[in-house]
Amino acid sequence: MLKRRITLKDVAAQAGVTYQTVSKVINGHTHVLPATEARIRAASLALGYKPNHSARSLRAQRSRMIGYSWVPTRPEQVNHILDLFLTSMVEEAEAASYHLLPFPFDQDVSAYRELIDSGRVDAFVLSSVNYGDLRARFLQEQAYPFVAFGRSEAGQDFPYVDIDGADGLRQATEHLLGLGHQRIAALAWPVGSRVGDDRLSGYLVTVTAAGLPARPDLIARGEGTFQFGLEATARWLDLPLNQRPTALVALNDSLAIGALHALQRQGLRPGTDLAVVGFDDTPTAQYLWPPLSSVRQPIRAAGQLCVGILVALLEGRAPADAQVVLKPELIVRSSSSRRVT
Amino acid sequence: MLKRRITLKDVAAQAGVTYQTVSKVINGHTHVLPATEARIRAASLALGYKPNHSARSLRAQRSRMIGYSWVPTRPEQVNHILDLFLTSMVEEAEAASYHLLPFPFDQDVSAYRELIDSGRVDAFVLSSVNYGDLRARFLQEQAYPFVAFGRSEAGQDFPYVDIDGADGLRQATEHLLGLGHQRIAALAWPVGSRVGDDRLSGYLVTVTAAGLPARPDLIARGEGTFQFGLEATARWLDLPLNQRPTALVALNDSLAIGALHALQRQGLRPGTDLAVVGFDDTPTAQYLWPPLSSVRQPIRAAGQLCVGILVALLEGRAPADAQVVLKPELIVRSSSSRRVT
Repeated sequence: MLKRRITLKDVAAQAGVTYQTVSKVINGHTHVLPATEARIRAASLALGYKPNHSARSLRAQRSRMIGYSWVPTRPEQVNHILDLFLTSMVEEAEAASYHLLPFPFDQDVSAYRELIDSGRVDAFVLSSVNYGDLRARFLQEQAYPFVAFGRSEAGQDFPYVDIDGADGLRQATEHLLGLGHQRIAALAWPVGSRVGDDRLSGYLVTVTAAGLPARPDLIARGEGTFQFGLEATARWLDLPLNQRPTALVALNDSLAIGALHALQRQGLRPGTDLAVVGFDDTPTAQYLWPPLSSVRQPIRAAGQLCVGILVALLEGRAPADAQVVLKPELIVRSSSSRRVT
Repeated sequence: MLKRRITLKDVAAQAGVTYQTVSKVINGHTHVLPATEARIRAASLALGYKPNHSARSLRAQRSRMIGYSWVPTRPEQVNHILDLFLTSMVEEAEAASYHLLPFPFDQDVSAYRELIDSGRVDAFVLSSVNYGDLRARFLQEQAYPFVAFGRSEAGQDFPYVDIDGADGLRQATEHLLGLGHQRIAALAWPVGSRVGDDRLSGYLVTVTAAGLPARPDLIARGEGTFQFGLEATARWLDLPLNQRPTALVALNDSLAIGALHALQRQGLRPGTDLAVVGFDDTPTAQYLWPPLSSVRQPIRAAGQLCVGILVALLEGRAPADAQVVLKPELIVRSSSSRRVT
């Protein structure tokens, strides 16, 4: 027997409110007491209510647009992957007669709601997905097609394309172990970043598996900036020589470049006095002196897959795989190519 | 007396072909003998024919989309300004209830024709405009609204926003003269690039005004790449000390970074043995060792102005200024901060 479609009336009955209240709350057109909203959300989740978007698409023509927004780059920083990611998505979309619609970034869902209500986009690519991502939850509640570039917590049931950050740090750490390093430090982001926790776990698992003593003081957590990388590395360089790390991995290239500058300011030689490996393989990495080893992400493939999955979903085909994790690749340069002597 | 609107019939009569042929050629729907097409184009230019797009907008709703595409970045290169330029345009457009529609880059006009015919965009922002730009000419013939980020040849009559590259090189060269440099080299692009010719002219005018002897061997022209900057600088470093340049200006940061590496490979000190100034002030510049002096372009303002001008045109208001040239700013860092002793 086919399950009957859950309607707003079912949600209203379960939540003990009127049909009109549920409709307004679900469509975001009114504000009610937080407790009432919570009751309605709980009821709609419990019943598995999905808004009926097919009615809407019967009314309105499809836009053949895919919404995308990205976290604005802070001054003095650069978004290294935007060009490649955007270009690959634009080309992949074009090939399927879709276009991208970039819009200003907002952690809140109102921009998404507006684009849905105005019928300007058929689907979204979410970037910078984090734990308990509000945008992902909202789009799931709306049953609106989206794919996330990056995973949220384990067990999530929406389509995503992600890069295996833990594997990247595993490769970087094993490379340094292979050169004979025993005291390997890590420049990491604060606790609570999904991408950061994922990357750092690759380092932790690998040093632990190598039987190295636990040295919590060799993990520095802070903003992923040049400045933090510089300061944390300068502190390590103040340690007595027999405790000082001989190598470090960084969760991004900005941190690693800060580490290079800490060495250079003290007249020390990156790659000789301290091996350094970054993450992102920004175009800068190859031009530094010495050139920086770094973990390169398959950004072009990720962009193509994000759009490919969405187009399949929009056209009613099952995507080959709707939850994809891609492996990154370690690029070794002279910042980490000398064996420990 | 008001001038009568020139119609396709007038163009047909002048070109000596049928109305149908003109219509198809103007709308790009057929191919005719090149001589016929040339006759039609000449007739429509001579008469000042403008396609009647208002009829089209009466039929179709405005899309409130602005088309934009950018030159794809070669592997190992990075488009330093894309993020900032795109973000500023997206935000400016959003504020006026417009959106950007990015599409794959094409020097040809077919992508533009397709987007016009499908009614997907109301206007375009053109980037990488060069001499005799085909896209600009096509959009002018179509009388379709656009703004160019960058000028084409002098005397053009379309809206543009550009950065004064000559002024940037003037600032860089005067800065080096002020430090006492007398032999200043230039890393430039091949002849025939509008942006390159513009930037180089600022160097030429300034060294000439300073009464320095003409040294054609101090101007190296090649691809604007790291590799070319490295090779050209290495050749200069082979000159006898009393002929060798003591400073150089580069038309972009990639060339300047190549110059830094040429010095470092020979054990020479950038900023001391040779002063180096780049152009673009890429985020990399500040992180190099030594940090690179560079000319910073007001990219955010340029993006806002491009969209601002278009929105004014689309809404029938006269833009405050439809041909804007913005001044860049020299950022001095330690690659060029020492006086010649």
